[in-house]
Amino acid sequence: MRVDRVPLGDLRPDPVALLARTAYLELSLFEAASSVAARASDLADREVVTRVAARILGQHTALVDLLTEQGEVPAVAMQPYAADIDRYWRRFGETGWHESVLTLHLATGLLNDFFAQLGAGLPGSLADRYCAVLTADLGQESLVQVLSAAIAGDRRMTSRLALWGRRIVGDTLLVARSALDAVRDPSGVPVETEERRVEPVLNDLIAAHTRRMDRLGLTA
Amino acid sequence: MRVDRVPLGDLRPDPVALLARTAYLELSLFEAASSVAARASDLADREVVTRVAARILGQHTALVDLLTEQGEVPAVAMQPYAADIDRYWRRFGETGWHESVLTLHLATGLLNDFFAQLGAGLPGSLADRYCAVLTADLGQESLVQVLSAAIAGDRRMTSRLALWGRRIVGDTLLVARSALDAVRDPSGVPVETEERRVEPVLNDLIAAHTRRMDRLGLTA
Repeated sequence: MRVDRVPLGDLRPDPVALLARTAYLELSLFEAASSVAARASDLADREVVTRVAARILGQHTALVDLLTEQGEVPAVAMQPYAADIDRYWRRFGETGWHESVLTLHLATGLLNDFFAQLGAGLPGSLADRYCAVLTADLGQESLVQVLSAAIAGDRRMTSRLALWGRRIVGDTLLVARSALDAVRDPSGVPVETEERRVEPVLNDLIAAHTRRMDRLGLTA
Repeated sequence: MRVDRVPLGDLRPDPVALLARTAYLELSLFEAASSVAARASDLADREVVTRVAARILGQHTALVDLLTEQGEVPAVAMQPYAADIDRYWRRFGETGWHESVLTLHLATGLLNDFFAQLGAGLPGSLADRYCAVLTADLGQESLVQVLSAAIAGDRRMTSRLALWGRRIVGDTLLVARSALDAVRDPSGVPVETEERRVEPVLNDLIAAHTRRMDRLGLTA
């Protein structure tokens, strides 16, 4: 079936809901990153992941500041999104260290891409400010280097990580998709029921995910 | 026995050793703070501790930048200090959440105070830049509020935390003192053997610790 492409940019997401959801998401990504850093066996790797954690934390605090500007109490505004996002992380369970680094790389890539697209529909200057936060460089190139060093010449690591990348992409797409639950298009139709709108967005996210995997020499 | 007071300011600590030791210390304090944040049962508390973690992380990255300016590879320079500092944290074992918040408050207070004093002897503008990092406001007032709320009217919490504050002060003083191991005074005498120098510094640190405990209504 041919799907007509309709971007997300004409949607008008609720500012507080979008800010709060992504502020909580970045908090959870930050905690994941800190925990990966703390588990690094090598101090140089730990330093690399700590830098990434610092930048994700910068995203979180910038979004909390935007929420505060909107007159919200951040902790109260974020609360409704906590359970879903916590469940996302719990689903991965205990994994090897390199799997966790890959999760961090792939999840930040996919989710920041998605929310930056959705944020284009925020009102006035908020759109630009939000998107600047979401598209900030997190130092993912340094994660690629850590992963590439582990993959180089280790066929077992290559197949473990390829498997892991495939394992997490579905759950990560669901986190993105669930942000569309409450969004309606300009004619009042719930966006999640509009396949012509949702499908191309998910396909783009999957294509970018595949490029990240390719870059590491992993089959997506 | 009367002890003549000789401050630490005339000592000339090795810049790389001091920067590397405190960079690692702040990294470990940051990881402790992140882990406390992640264990908070209340999202507002989690936000408070995350903000403190962010500022400690800012100290760590500022010190790493100073190390890099000195031509050092930070991970390599920090390595010699990792085992001792890791042992410090391990000694506390698993504790209640409020105990961990108190540790964070007391340890950051005591150690940043101490290292700022020792840093006054660094060469040139490095002294000011180092001390600016060490004396930055970490938002400890917000930790005091979290703790005060828990203590208010809860005698069991009060006695638990009073005990805990006494439990950790000795180990924390040892972390400070071990930084004097390799430092010599202007006449070449190892500082750690000079009681007239070390005693008043430790006494000042203990007095400041007691004020932090008093502030919380806890017997030090």
